[in-house]
Amino acid sequence: MPHYRPADASAAPRYAGVRTFARLPHVEPTSAGVDVAVLGAPFDTATSFRPGARFGPEAIRSASTLLRPYHPVLDVDVFETLSVIDGGDLPVTPGNAPRTAEQLAASLEPLLRAGVVPLVLGGDHSIVLGELRAQAAVRGPVAVVLLDAHADVWDQYYGERYFHGTPFRRAVEERVVDPSRSLMAGMRGPLYSRRDLEAPRELGFEVISGEELLQLSPDEYAARVRARVGDGPAVLSFDVDVLDPAFAPGTGTPEVAGLLPRDAISFVRALAGMPFYGFDVVEVSPPYDAPAQVTALHAAAIAYEMLAVLAVARQR
Amino acid sequence: MPHYRPADASAAPRYAGVRTFARLPHVEPTSAGVDVAVLGAPFDTATSFRPGARFGPEAIRSASTLLRPYHPVLDVDVFETLSVIDGGDLPVTPGNAPRTAEQLAASLEPLLRAGVVPLVLGGDHSIVLGELRAQAAVRGPVAVVLLDAHADVWDQYYGERYFHGTPFRRAVEERVVDPSRSLMAGMRGPLYSRRDLEAPRELGFEVISGEELLQLSPDEYAARVRARVGDGPAVLSFDVDVLDPAFAPGTGTPEVAGLLPRDAISFVRALAGMPFYGFDVVEVSPPYDAPAQVTALHAAAIAYEMLAVLAVARQR
Amino acid sequence: MPHYRPADASAAPRYAGVRTFARLPHVEPTSAGVDVAVLGAPFDTATSFRPGARFGPEAIRSASTLLRPYHPVLDVDVFETLSVIDGGDLPVTPGNAPRTAEQLAASLEPLLRAGVVPLVLGGDHSIVLGELRAQAAVRGPVAVVLLDAHADVWDQYYGERYFHGTPFRRAVEERVVDPSRSLMAGMRGPLYSRRDLEAPRELGFEVISGEELLQLSPDEYAARVRARVGDGPAVLSFDVDVLDPAFAPGTGTPEVAGLLPRDAISFVRALAGMPFYGFDVVEVSPPYDAPAQVTALHAAAIAYEMLAVLAVARQR
Amino acid sequence: MPHYRPADASAAPRYAGVRTFARLPHVEPTSAGVDVAVLGAPFDTATSFRPGARFGPEAIRSASTLLRPYHPVLDVDVFETLSVIDGGDLPVTPGNAPRTAEQLAASLEPLLRAGVVPLVLGGDHSIVLGELRAQAAVRGPVAVVLLDAHADVWDQYYGERYFHGTPFRRAVEERVVDPSRSLMAGMRGPLYSRRDLEAPRELGFEVISGEELLQLSPDEYAARVRARVGDGPAVLSFDVDVLDPAFAPGTGTPEVAGLLPRDAISFVRALAGMPFYGFDVVEVSPPYDAPAQVTALHAAAIAYEMLAVLAVARQR
Amino acid sequence: MPHYRPADASAAPRYAGVRTFARLPHVEPTSAGVDVAVLGAPFDTATSFRPGARFGPEAIRSASTLLRPYHPVLDVDVFETLSVIDGGDLPVTPGNAPRTAEQLAASLEPLLRAGVVPLVLGGDHSIVLGELRAQAAVRGPVAVVLLDAHADVWDQYYGERYFHGTPFRRAVEERVVDPSRSLMAGMRGPLYSRRDLEAPRELGFEVISGEELLQLSPDEYAARVRARVGDGPAVLSFDVDVLDPAFAPGTGTPEVAGLLPRDAISFVRALAGMPFYGFDVVEVSPPYDAPAQVTALHAAAIAYEMLAVLAVARQR
Amino acid sequence: MPHYRPADASAAPRYAGVRTFARLPHVEPTSAGVDVAVLGAPFDTATSFRPGARFGPEAIRSASTLLRPYHPVLDVDVFETLSVIDGGDLPVTPGNAPRTAEQLAASLEPLLRAGVVPLVLGGDHSIVLGELRAQAAVRGPVAVVLLDAHADVWDQYYGERYFHGTPFRRAVEERVVDPSRSLMAGMRGPLYSRRDLEAPRELGFEVISGEELLQLSPDEYAARVRARVGDGPAVLSFDVDVLDPAFAPGTGTPEVAGLLPRDAISFVRALAGMPFYGFDVVEVSPPYDAPAQVTALHAAAIAYEMLAVLAVARQR
Repeated sequence: MPHYRPADASAAPRYAGVRTFARLPHVEPTSAGVDVAVLGAPFDTATSFRPGARFGPEAIRSASTLLRPYHPVLDVDVFETLSVIDGGDLPVTPGNAPRTAEQLAASLEPLLRAGVVPLVLGGDHSIVLGELRAQAAVRGPVAVVLLDAHADVWDQYYGERYFHGTPFRRAVEERVVDPSRSLMAGMRGPLYSRRDLEAPRELGFEVISGEELLQLSPDEYAARVRARVGDGPAVLSFDVDVLDPAFAPGTGTPEVAGLLPRDAISFVRALAGMPFYGFDVVEVSPPYDAPAQVTALHAAAIAYEMLAVLAVARQR
Repeated sequence: MPHYRPADASAAPRYAGVRTFARLPHVEPTSAGVDVAVLGAPFDTATSFRPGARFGPEAIRSASTLLRPYHPVLDVDVFETLSVIDGGDLPVTPGNAPRTAEQLAASLEPLLRAGVVPLVLGGDHSIVLGELRAQAAVRGPVAVVLLDAHADVWDQYYGERYFHGTPFRRAVEERVVDPSRSLMAGMRGPLYSRRDLEAPRELGFEVISGEELLQLSPDEYAARVRARVGDGPAVLSFDVDVLDPAFAPGTGTPEVAGLLPRDAISFVRALAGMPFYGFDVVEVSPPYDAPAQVTALHAAAIAYEMLAVLAVARQR
Repeated sequence: MPHYRPADASAAPRYAGVRTFARLPHVEPTSAGVDVAVLGAPFDTATSFRPGARFGPEAIRSASTLLRPYHPVLDVDVFETLSVIDGGDLPVTPGNAPRTAEQLAASLEPLLRAGVVPLVLGGDHSIVLGELRAQAAVRGPVAVVLLDAHADVWDQYYGERYFHGTPFRRAVEERVVDPSRSLMAGMRGPLYSRRDLEAPRELGFEVISGEELLQLSPDEYAARVRARVGDGPAVLSFDVDVLDPAFAPGTGTPEVAGLLPRDAISFVRALAGMPFYGFDVVEVSPPYDAPAQVTALHAAAIAYEMLAVLAVARQR
Repeated sequence: MPHYRPADASAAPRYAGVRTFARLPHVEPTSAGVDVAVLGAPFDTATSFRPGARFGPEAIRSASTLLRPYHPVLDVDVFETLSVIDGGDLPVTPGNAPRTAEQLAASLEPLLRAGVVPLVLGGDHSIVLGELRAQAAVRGPVAVVLLDAHADVWDQYYGERYFHGTPFRRAVEERVVDPSRSLMAGMRGPLYSRRDLEAPRELGFEVISGEELLQLSPDEYAARVRARVGDGPAVLSFDVDVLDPAFAPGTGTPEVAGLLPRDAISFVRALAGMPFYGFDVVEVSPPYDAPAQVTALHAAAIAYEMLAVLAVARQR
Repeated sequence: MPHYRPADASAAPRYAGVRTFARLPHVEPTSAGVDVAVLGAPFDTATSFRPGARFGPEAIRSASTLLRPYHPVLDVDVFETLSVIDGGDLPVTPGNAPRTAEQLAASLEPLLRAGVVPLVLGGDHSIVLGELRAQAAVRGPVAVVLLDAHADVWDQYYGERYFHGTPFRRAVEERVVDPSRSLMAGMRGPLYSRRDLEAPRELGFEVISGEELLQLSPDEYAARVRARVGDGPAVLSFDVDVLDPAFAPGTGTPEVAGLLPRDAISFVRALAGMPFYGFDVVEVSPPYDAPAQVTALHAAAIAYEMLAVLAVARQR
Repeated sequence: MPHYRPADASAAPRYAGVRTFARLPHVEPTSAGVDVAVLGAPFDTATSFRPGARFGPEAIRSASTLLRPYHPVLDVDVFETLSVIDGGDLPVTPGNAPRTAEQLAASLEPLLRAGVVPLVLGGDHSIVLGELRAQAAVRGPVAVVLLDAHADVWDQYYGERYFHGTPFRRAVEERVVDPSRSLMAGMRGPLYSRRDLEAPRELGFEVISGEELLQLSPDEYAARVRARVGDGPAVLSFDVDVLDPAFAPGTGTPEVAGLLPRDAISFVRALAGMPFYGFDVVEVSPPYDAPAQVTALHAAAIAYEMLAVLAVARQR
């Protein structure tokens, strides 16, 4: 069985070659021997403020060329432990969020059945609904571990029910997520009313606000996550707007006073060993990320931490 | 009857105050005494490449503060001749192009019935369908005079029929445009096949390619327009991508080797005196226009020339 | 009596419409029923390094469209508690700082007499002198609570006495500020000489350096402020350069190693309930803030916290 | 007598070293042996729209490192023919245009008396008044040859009489310019009223509008200039906004549809051999010129053409 | 034999998928059935001013997603006529120009022997030496048709003989180019001395200066090229700095007053039918091309015209 | 003996004049009376990812104009205590790292023999090898105190032994550094393998990882440094990539989750009084630092702290 790993960086500079995630081989995601498939979801129709996330996968791939295989803090060789490929981009229909959710679900389901873990690069957060439908089709309702500035449980925007602020409400309605095993963290910023604070909890989610999260150590956060999620299937979703806008200026709905990357990475890293069935990093909007593309750098780093979280699980 | 004109620039610097087009009063567009209403259409769901045109109206308003009332070449005081207001933005639904076309048509129709000429600031080019529906509801099928790098007569994009590359085909199908009196100019760049060259002509439009257009003098162009349009009602639509990308970098689908602004302005100016019933300037995408916002500057200048074209007509 | 609040965000996307602060109605500031008037002061003649703050009000208005009414940490609906309007921009004379200070004072005084609390969006910091003159004309010398990287008590710059580094010395000389009830915090960075350290204290101000401030909890800071200010009238002035340059790159005289926004917001928030008679957020320079306008985002957020501070006071 | 020339580019890369204009020695401008002194005027208080020209001299110096000594079209070795130095920046007072005009005049007069030709890098156009006063003090009223989008003969802005739109009216009033020997070219864009068209002519200037200028060959333009200027003393002033905004985005008051650089350079080049007593290139605003600083590149190129114009004169 | 063509744009938006040139398949360049291989040369060690061209291939690939197969002016379906692939990037050694030239030559030679035409995306212009060595190894000395602001025939820079200003001198010395059949056009800008004007001619090249080139029609230019090149093997090299800096800001050594893209494209297009054995487009530096990447857009368009030139030749 | 200090900021605005570091006199570095010479090393050939550091010295000089003489935290007047000059740029050869190292060593040695302390502004980190060779030639192997995200002890890159990731291995091999007295801190980010973690320690360096460093107080860090370095000669090297990318976006190989500037400055400041014989601040890449040049601001601030560290030592 083939083992897929990044191109040899001693043979050519890391900025050489067609851009794939971490310089991985571009391979069909359902191929034999694939543990993880990195996949783009270039979609931003469902964005309520600044668009551009359709170019997120391109930018994250570009920034990811700086990644290397060995994770010194978790002491794991990510790409030796896991066979990882870049599976290209998933099908989407610009201008049509409901259809895109269907396309994403339909194309992810065969991967999941083949035992592949998808790591999806957004795209706006509406794409998570397609991911959850595919997961649920294979495993039943899944737990969601979410780091995000927003709970994304609105009912609709200007009459549109499939929007980047609504996916988790839709997911509860469709019973593709299990809110009783799910935990959202990082929510901050002004709201329309006090009711908005209660909405995710009424749907059954546990919520740690941004203010509370800053009081938790990574281990405390991880303990909360593990206690909530239990042994059932789970996915990990990271919206870059959970970061402070200085670190993630290139995003659709920036919210001031967010996490520092050192915080965010520690939180993700503390989940090492949890056998997630899916990951995503969403809401990178490159037009607002010039010239150094720091948001994409952070997104690539978070994606790498997700791989490391899984590598530790597989290593055991 | 009130006459609306820009704020007095001798009283405060032009960069002072809430940004309206040309520092005009922000007034309900159906108010008495309004000749022209400048209106934003902040919509970019129907964009096939670079998004951002939802911020086009804001950027054009910002750039327009440099405009002054007297047009020295046409020798007309635009704002003395016409009573012009900024009517704010038209209703749109992000993520839903068909519904937005309906909203635009519904909100423009009462203006047109009140004798107001709308000057719409895009937004992607899909918005023109709403404009044409409103015009046709009041006056029957109208002629379109189009300056654009693309003919926008595709049938669909990835299954979506309401897209920024399709409005003029839809308009013909809906009989809201009269192609036999319409003239498209400026089309350039590679196509999918030779058939694409023929498509607008098969729909009944007259087409002047970008290469041909560069061979015409402004007067020759204007003669072609006047001959084609005749005496019936007409609208003038300007897509900023007809300009060369150095002058209009902030646009959704840039095409190299376009018009210089001096060319484009001369072509519009040569239409002075034509009594258009509507105008638009579309496809300004500010995220790609930093830092000097030159695309927005050009869009504001084109909008000003449109006002001057009408002012000459009214002056007579 | 009318109650003014932001446009309904469920009716149109937040990026639609002519840009006013927080999508508030653009109303004459002396109108009946106004609790707070947000007002721009588009002036940067008095800047000693990077100019551009004349475009600060435009940028803060643009960024403020993301604000929502309910403040979850202070549990207050800001716009339900307060009737707030955007009063447009105050009169200024580019190139003439002394005259501008006079214009600002003259235009603010009637508002203050009408019981309106001004929230001024700068503009460089020289504008605070006009604000203080107006306050003193109505209420006598006022206390100033200042968050800033610089004490702004120089005597002159190259012979100019009205400059963005001199307003608080002028204000003491003119007896429009009461230094014995005032507290400056956040001062950092190299100085011309040791005497500069002493200058604000010699004028009677209490000073908390940036290094000290980082050692204080928000509650400790607020206790210092409340003890110093007492029951007399006070204003709150926030210069964005108190923030670290990564969070406020768009400012006139950046100083490294400043506050994180989470710190700064906590400090302001800890003042909740203090009945300030005026507020300002100054020194946002948009040309240095591209492409994501994070400085303007932070300025809008600080302005929102100021409104919340007052809303808590009024709620009681 | 020393001959000053650029640093040897074969010894070190052109991007090495402290930035002086064209890598020239930084020398006191009144030193013996100096033919031309390049001097910055870092001043932008008198700008009516976008500020930033205070950083113009820095940016033009940076861009000028690419210049080389031999001019192939005029067949002249500029720096062999002329001894040129960078004299640093002239004294200015930010926030005070009248005082700055006095400082500029006072510091330029000794140079002119020493036979040095100043080439001033702006800064906003208000600085030309100081130049003209110094010239007139030495030689009596001088002719001005101006390439500019604006005639800069307003009477005042918001009450300020020393502004970047007023210097040539002030210069006529002060009798430091001789309008009957002066020629302005390139004026374009909307005006406040028809009277503005007449104002420069009423003051005695000859005016070639931007539209007319595009119809002239470089030789025709030069013939007009030579005929007008005659044998008396003259200066050449170039405002970068005479260029199209795509080529000069970094400027204070951009005006669409200007000259192409190939046009502008040809016009200046056609004046080769005219023994001007002073030159300036003004209105470069670097904050709006990122990232490639093309406006500064053009300003440096124009400055180089000015040196070549003089070198041809001296060569004869 | 397979025929390689771009991905179907009706199936997925053009911004979807791993970025290859024109969305072509990423295939080994020596595979059967390949007519043209597009290949990156991500190298900028040999740049004398602004670096960044190592990211040129990435940027051109990104911009090329907008290309379509049918060329309406030449009436040829480029990708139907030619089987084209993206062969990834050629091997380079950052920091070592001589070794890189060897690597490029060694990797290109097998392609040429297989009858594949390489279209190389630079990278700085030093890479052309590797291309010419490979061509000469297969076919003997080749003609070069060059469009460039600079002749690139210096002997050395600071002692370095392999630099982006020296490749054509090296190529003559190594007898891999035939200067007597080669034609350089577009040279402009100041030089070190009059001798530099003569240097390329002394080496045997024909030179058309930038000033002369602007006087030629495309057909006149093409006639000059065809007459010079004759029937022997030839390559076409395009340095983006032949364009004006407004259209190609993102380049290493910008030179003002260059070609408009409409000119440059017409010149290339006029060569339609010439059976070149190799092509390159060089000196795109993305860090100076933000935010709209117009230089990369133009480079992609020129590469497309090169393919069309060859397609017309093959069609006959 | 002359004492060199910055230009008087009360006489002219700080943005006036030819840009030298901190507005210091531009003087030959071996002149009498010089304590510290600030020197540029405009070199980036040895960069493995994003180039541009050749423009680092220019950008740091530009940003340093905001510095003032008195350091309020260390209570020292830096420029009164030390006589400091800007010595311009050191000789380098673009495209040739080994030769550049030789040039740097050869030009620094006479300074060191004259008792001058060099403060070198990079340029990429490969330049440190030249510094160390010069130090060792005068004083024998020196200790290095390094703050950096990377240990820079690779053996080679693509066969190149003189690269910005290799200088400290070369320095050990050449016995110009004494690793047993040296301490590296701040290393973070993924590696190629576990062996990379050990490599610097195997060479004899003490290493404090980025994660450990964040747990140390400034005093604890300084105690570690002082204990390690002892009384022998030492240099202090600061790579801006030790900072978080939000604060240092303009650098060659950004690594997420770095130090905040407040941390980094505290660490450097805690070394006050250590009599370093040399300093450098490296890896500032201005093309990625637009528009506010915050990386350069931080580099200038770090350079100022280095001067203060030495001033405290000299003051005693």
